[in-house]
Amino acid sequence: MKTYANSEGNIIFVRLDDGEDFFDGLTKALKEQGVQAGVIIGAIGMLRNFEIGWFNTSTMQYEKEFISQPHELTSVQGNISKKDGEIFIHAHVTLAGASRTIVGGHLFKAEVCNTAEIFVEKLDINLVRKQAQGFRPLEVE
Amino acid sequence: MKTYANSEGNIIFVRLDDGEDFFDGLTKALKEQGVQAGVIIGAIGMLRNFEIGWFNTSTMQYEKEFISQPHELTSVQGNISKKDGEIFIHAHVTLAGASRTIVGGHLFKAEVCNTAEIFVEKLDINLVRKQAQGFRPLEVE
Amino acid sequence: MKTYANSEGNIIFVRLDDGEDFFDGLTKALKEQGVQAGVIIGAIGMLRNFEIGWFNTSTMQYEKEFISQPHELTSVQGNISKKDGEIFIHAHVTLAGASRTIVGGHLFKAEVCNTAEIFVEKLDINLVRKQAQGFRPLEVE
Repeated sequence: MKTYANSEGNIIFVRLDDGEDFFDGLTKALKEQGVQAGVIIGAIGMLRNFEIGWFNTSTMQYEKEFISQPHELTSVQGNISKKDGEIFIHAHVTLAGASRTIVGGHLFKAEVCNTAEIFVEKLDINLVRKQAQGFRPLEVE
Repeated sequence: MKTYANSEGNIIFVRLDDGEDFFDGLTKALKEQGVQAGVIIGAIGMLRNFEIGWFNTSTMQYEKEFISQPHELTSVQGNISKKDGEIFIHAHVTLAGASRTIVGGHLFKAEVCNTAEIFVEKLDINLVRKQAQGFRPLEVE
Repeated sequence: MKTYANSEGNIIFVRLDDGEDFFDGLTKALKEQGVQAGVIIGAIGMLRNFEIGWFNTSTMQYEKEFISQPHELTSVQGNISKKDGEIFIHAHVTLAGASRTIVGGHLFKAEVCNTAEIFVEKLDINLVRKQAQGFRPLEVE
C-alpha cells in the first residue's frame, strides 16, 4: 500500500498491490491520511477472490456470491464513515469478467489483482452509522 | 431527505430514504444547498420502480424499460445544469439485480429503496442545456 | 471539443461531440487546461466503435473486443498521469447496449456518439507510470 495526498490535503490517492486485501489496505491508508469521513471519487484496477451481495428486501438478508476469477474493476462508488468508533467503508462495485460481461453489487471482501488505483475525497462532515435495528443509515452528527 | 455540506461548501451530501422519489428528493436538496451546477461524484444505495433508457440513434428516440424489482445501485454518474431556468439532473446508472446481473442506462425516474447516499460537487461553472432541435447539449454561458 | 474550468481551477469540464475520438479529444482538453495529473470524477454520454479489454492474468495479455453499435456510457472511472513524458489516460468503462445489458472493461479506444460530458479533478500530485517490465504501476515522484 502506498498513499499520497494533494497539497490541499482533500484528495487522497491510494495504490494497493497484487494480493493485498482491499478493505484492510484502504482502511490502513485512510488512517494514515487522517480520513474520518469521505467519498470514493474513483477506483480502478482488478479484483479476484471477491464477495459481492444483493440485499433481498423480502428476507432482509444479503444474498452473497463469491467469485474467485480475476475481474476488471470498472467502478467503485461509496463512502467512508465511522461505525461504532471504527472506520467503515461502504462500497458498491461493477466488475467485468473474461467475456466482458459484468457483475456487481455491495462489496463485502476482495483481494487486489495486479493493482488498485483509488482516489478518495476527504470530508469534514462527521458521517456516522448510528446504532439501529437492522439497517444502519448514514447520519451526520 | 437530509442534506449537509462540508465547511468549504463545495461537497454536498444528500441522503434519500425508502420510498422517496430520486429526482424530486435530489432536486429539493440541490435547491436547499444553492447548487445551480455540479457533478455527481458518487451515489450508492438501492432503487426500485425505476425507468432506464437507451438512445436509439436510428429512430432518435429512447427505448425505455421499467423495472419494479429492487436493485443495488452500483454507480451513478452525471451532472446538474439549468434547462429552461430549472435544475436539470442528467444521470446514468448501473444497477445489480437479484442474480448479481447488471442493467443500466439513462435514468428517467426511480424510487429509493432503503437508502440512497449521494455526493455532489458544486461548481461555479454556469452549465446550461440550451434550446435546440432534438438533443440539447451541455453548454457553458 | 469544448473545455471549461471552475474559478478555483481544480475541476475541469470537457464536452466532446459526435464523431470525436474520446482519447484524442480528452487529451487535447487536458493539455489546454494544464492537467498533468488527475482523476476522472464522472463522465456520461454515448460511445460507438469502441474497444474494451479484460486482462488475462494467465497469458498476461489483454483480451480485446471491438463493438461498433452505440452504447450509453454509464460510468467512466480512471486517472491521468505522465507516461514517458506524455499524458496517459487510464480509463475503465461500463456501457449499456440496446437491450439495457451492460459490457465493460479497460477502454482502449472509442468514438463519441452524440456527446460525452466529462469532469476531471486536477491534482498537484506528480502521478507517473514508471518504466517497468510488463505492467507499469501508478507511482508518485
